[in-house]
Amino acid sequence: MRRIRKAVHAGYCWGVERALDIVHHTAETTNGPVRTLGPIIHNPQVVASLSEKGVQAIESLDELEAGGTVIIRTHGVAPAVYQQAQEKGLTVVDATCPLVTLVQNKAKQLVAEGYHLIIFGNPRHPEVIGTLGHAGGAATVIEHPEDVCQAKLPKKVGVVVQTTQETERVGALLSYLAPRCKELKVFNTICNPTIERQDAARELAREVEVMIVVGGKNSSNTRHLATVCREEGARTYHIEEPGEVQPEWFAGVREIGVTAGASTPGWLMDHVIARIQELEADNLLPA
Amino acid sequence: MRRIRKAVHAGYCWGVERALDIVHHTAETTNGPVRTLGPIIHNPQVVASLSEKGVQAIESLDELEAGGTVIIRTHGVAPAVYQQAQEKGLTVVDATCPLVTLVQNKAKQLVAEGYHLIIFGNPRHPEVIGTLGHAGGAATVIEHPEDVCQAKLPKKVGVVVQTTQETERVGALLSYLAPRCKELKVFNTICNPTIERQDAARELAREVEVMIVVGGKNSSNTRHLATVCREEGARTYHIEEPGEVQPEWFAGVREIGVTAGASTPGWLMDHVIARIQELEADNLLPA
Repeated sequence: MRRIRKAVHAGYCWGVERALDIVHHTAETTNGPVRTLGPIIHNPQVVASLSEKGVQAIESLDELEAGGTVIIRTHGVAPAVYQQAQEKGLTVVDATCPLVTLVQNKAKQLVAEGYHLIIFGNPRHPEVIGTLGHAGGAATVIEHPEDVCQAKLPKKVGVVVQTTQETERVGALLSYLAPRCKELKVFNTICNPTIERQDAARELAREVEVMIVVGGKNSSNTRHLATVCREEGARTYHIEEPGEVQPEWFAGVREIGVTAGASTPGWLMDHVIARIQELEADNLLPA
Repeated sequence: MRRIRKAVHAGYCWGVERALDIVHHTAETTNGPVRTLGPIIHNPQVVASLSEKGVQAIESLDELEAGGTVIIRTHGVAPAVYQQAQEKGLTVVDATCPLVTLVQNKAKQLVAEGYHLIIFGNPRHPEVIGTLGHAGGAATVIEHPEDVCQAKLPKKVGVVVQTTQETERVGALLSYLAPRCKELKVFNTICNPTIERQDAARELAREVEVMIVVGGKNSSNTRHLATVCREEGARTYHIEEPGEVQPEWFAGVREIGVTAGASTPGWLMDHVIARIQELEADNLLPA
């Protein structure tokens, strides 16, 4: 009998729960079309389910007529987007995670204090694009710690961090940055739910042979969860749905760990666990 | 014929030259005893030479009568020492390096701004003891980067660095510190003369087989020069005087690098080079 263990912290964070409450409440209380600008969270299954209920994601504000309602995604947007929505006569409902708002504010603060701003994160991620907008576009985005060695920087540098980064990578960034600066002010804005999920995943990955990480392939925090599990030496699979589970992953395996990103609903993680148990009950897992 | 190469930056920095000018000027223009509180710089040969000229180092202000003159060493002292000297009726002449004063001021600033202060340096070194005094005693002194993992720290941490530290070690410190803090403000107060001498030593050490580092065994910046030379793979000897040179160090060696700490007089480095040349001229170096 294989043992399946859930990470102590896994699945929805409060920022995601809050955003989904906002979406549901808005949909129920609004006449006329309600859209999210981009996916509200990085989970395709949840986004598809909202779409079926009439709340579709749009790529651009141009897809919505005046009088419509647009919901700002958890990852936030640049100030220019709020302005554009206002000019178009749209109602804006803001589901930006408060911990992302904090990053935006810290970025503004560092720029106001005269620091050259570094945003440490994925330059293609909406959170980073939004934060860059709040910083007035005056920032260097660093994706990989070692990239900072190539960046042209003044001696006074400020740093904010994408909420879903890995803590160890911030350390690596600063180890490259420290010899290049005279003054360095860092807001380590990785959010607590991210830290808790990474710590719990590390702990579990050390004790099991295989880790299953459930969540959007486009989800930054979920991808980092898979990375930390691999760093701890566990054979790790990042999947979105129960149907992706492959029986051969569990050949000779006695302990399986399961975790899920902050944008992954609990029912999806439970379905993955049920799927593994079902395969085992049906004698479909190799010995 | 062996080639002896001097590092591009080596020997006295301007803070040391300034301090020695202050000592000589004070000795020439003062009636009554002139003493330095502790060695004015970390070079026993220079300190011995000053002592012969009548400027002895004292360990405590109690060794000097009212009316005497005390010179504050390059490394600085805590505010309590100035006060004690005043109470004893001593004349104080301050030879603190202005770049050490900067560290003291940055330490005070960080404490005033509400950061928990870390002083990164040797807790037994007078510069660190003095800086701790200027910070009101409210600081954690970290000697080795990894020590920070054991320290009990709040989430808002400020850092100043002993002027003669190694830049790479600051990077290591921050890599351990970053995951432990929410807000981090760092003044990388390693002084430019230290950086120049370390860079020049690294460059030379990469190109020669043996490095001779000349300077006080008690000199922080000289010890770090020896460390960076070893890190670059050069066989490295840290000596204070020409008499310590051993012929067998140079068996089979074609290129010898020589550098000296910021508290090492040029003549001492030149004497070491002359000593090696003399041994070679006398056929006393093994082939």
